[in-house]
Amino acid sequence: MSLLRSVSDMHRLSTELRSGGKRIALVPTMGALHDGHLSLIRAAVAKSDVAITSVFVNPTQFGPNDDYDRYPRDLDHDCALAFGAGSNVVFAPTVEEMYPDGPVATVDVGPLGEKLEGKSRPGHFNGVATVVEKLFRITMPHVAFFGQKDAQQVAVIRFLVKSFDLDVEVIPMPIVREADGLAQSSRNMFLTASERAEAPVLYRALRLAAEQLSNGAADPVGIRQEMKEMISATSGVIDYISLADAATLEEITEKQRGQDVLVSLAVRYGKTRLIDNCHVRIP
Amino acid sequence: MSLLRSVSDMHRLSTELRSGGKRIALVPTMGALHDGHLSLIRAAVAKSDVAITSVFVNPTQFGPNDDYDRYPRDLDHDCALAFGAGSNVVFAPTVEEMYPDGPVATVDVGPLGEKLEGKSRPGHFNGVATVVEKLFRITMPHVAFFGQKDAQQVAVIRFLVKSFDLDVEVIPMPIVREADGLAQSSRNMFLTASERAEAPVLYRALRLAAEQLSNGAADPVGIRQEMKEMISATSGVIDYISLADAATLEEITEKQRGQDVLVSLAVRYGKTRLIDNCHVRIP
Repeated sequence: MSLLRSVSDMHRLSTELRSGGKRIALVPTMGALHDGHLSLIRAAVAKSDVAITSVFVNPTQFGPNDDYDRYPRDLDHDCALAFGAGSNVVFAPTVEEMYPDGPVATVDVGPLGEKLEGKSRPGHFNGVATVVEKLFRITMPHVAFFGQKDAQQVAVIRFLVKSFDLDVEVIPMPIVREADGLAQSSRNMFLTASERAEAPVLYRALRLAAEQLSNGAADPVGIRQEMKEMISATSGVIDYISLADAATLEEITEKQRGQDVLVSLAVRYGKTRLIDNCHVRIP
Repeated sequence: MSLLRSVSDMHRLSTELRSGGKRIALVPTMGALHDGHLSLIRAAVAKSDVAITSVFVNPTQFGPNDDYDRYPRDLDHDCALAFGAGSNVVFAPTVEEMYPDGPVATVDVGPLGEKLEGKSRPGHFNGVATVVEKLFRITMPHVAFFGQKDAQQVAVIRFLVKSFDLDVEVIPMPIVREADGLAQSSRNMFLTASERAEAPVLYRALRLAAEQLSNGAADPVGIRQEMKEMISATSGVIDYISLADAATLEEITEKQRGQDVLVSLAVRYGKTRLIDNCHVRIP
């Protein structure tokens, strides 16, 4: 178990591991590790010879009104959790290591980064793509694990990999849910008891959409409307409900056989903004 | 000697070469190979076990008014020249191979790509950086050779390498000049006899700047003025004369010890636009 702080040390180790025929897995995180991260780390451990957990609060994916300065940082605790879950290496570079001086070239993911979550976070997904591109270069993974909860992030990373012919297998890990279907999130703790009781409607709305896309008669426009009505019957304030092509995130207007559809939503309960999603392949 | 047309074949070969401990050199070109390219290829051959010449007319670095469709393409001839100069591999992917379908993520090099040559070619250097990023990924070179004639391109590639921690050594090869100092260019053939006789003033102006920066009393503002007067005494129409920091391409206004300065210019003689440059480290 080793903690590396410098880009050159990390890259040297990965180069050695590659030369030695070792299979490298990467779990990119911003620290503040929770059960979701640990499930990614365990999957990475199972699928590799060496599992690297990167811990880097990436400034370039925060907007001016985001909480970069207030983002929780506790490297000792994160190391204990990551090593406890079996990670062989924690790579935790400083900002100065990752962005040495002045401006840098960035990755531009275009319209894909401007939809859904990107609407309220301009530049966020370019920042994500840029830092992941850098982390892939430095850690040279064969395989990288991301949480499917952040579905747009997964789509952006897949787009990055395709665009630059990156030799990395991207594995999205399924959303972990409570017994009543609510997606696990560190934000759930901010819900009041009544909000918590209402919130599982989000999963029910996703299930409805999945069924309608798979078997039902309703078209995407009708499905969005049904979802909207279900959610609006609670105190939830809808930010977006989206039925989109899973690769391009373009909204769909009709069912196309074989299309992989991402159904996603963002809804506020009080001050707490929840996101959730599911994938459906139209039969 | 092998000609590869597919990204996956090229990447597979490079992966094998890397595993076998071979040192890979890349010379990225758009084909239409001339003596300048061949000097790069020979340098690559001398510095590697396997020298790859890529031949790809990259659509994303051409503007709408550029000559993408008219750009010369003769792969057989380029292969003969590249293999003749010792290149082991020619990698000549199709556009469909490099940009399979629809939009792609791109590299954004920011203000660095908007100065000098970039002023008249918006988006050009982002296109260059994007395709070089892809070529580096696919061919996995230890070392890559570029002509110093395209000084801004070298600066952009260095910036790319620094930004993404690319493990590639970038080697700029010196400008090849005629006996009277005129930089070799396929465009020189378009000069009339009188224009050809005047054009060596560009090199004299660069030499003057280099001397003044190294030893002279003149400051950058004065040096630009002197260069302008020298060139304006001929029929040359100045597009730009630049004394800039070699890394950022920001114009300098005073001499700073140890600074690496790029002196560059673009001047039209009749319909022929010539560029030239030199580097000076201020003592």
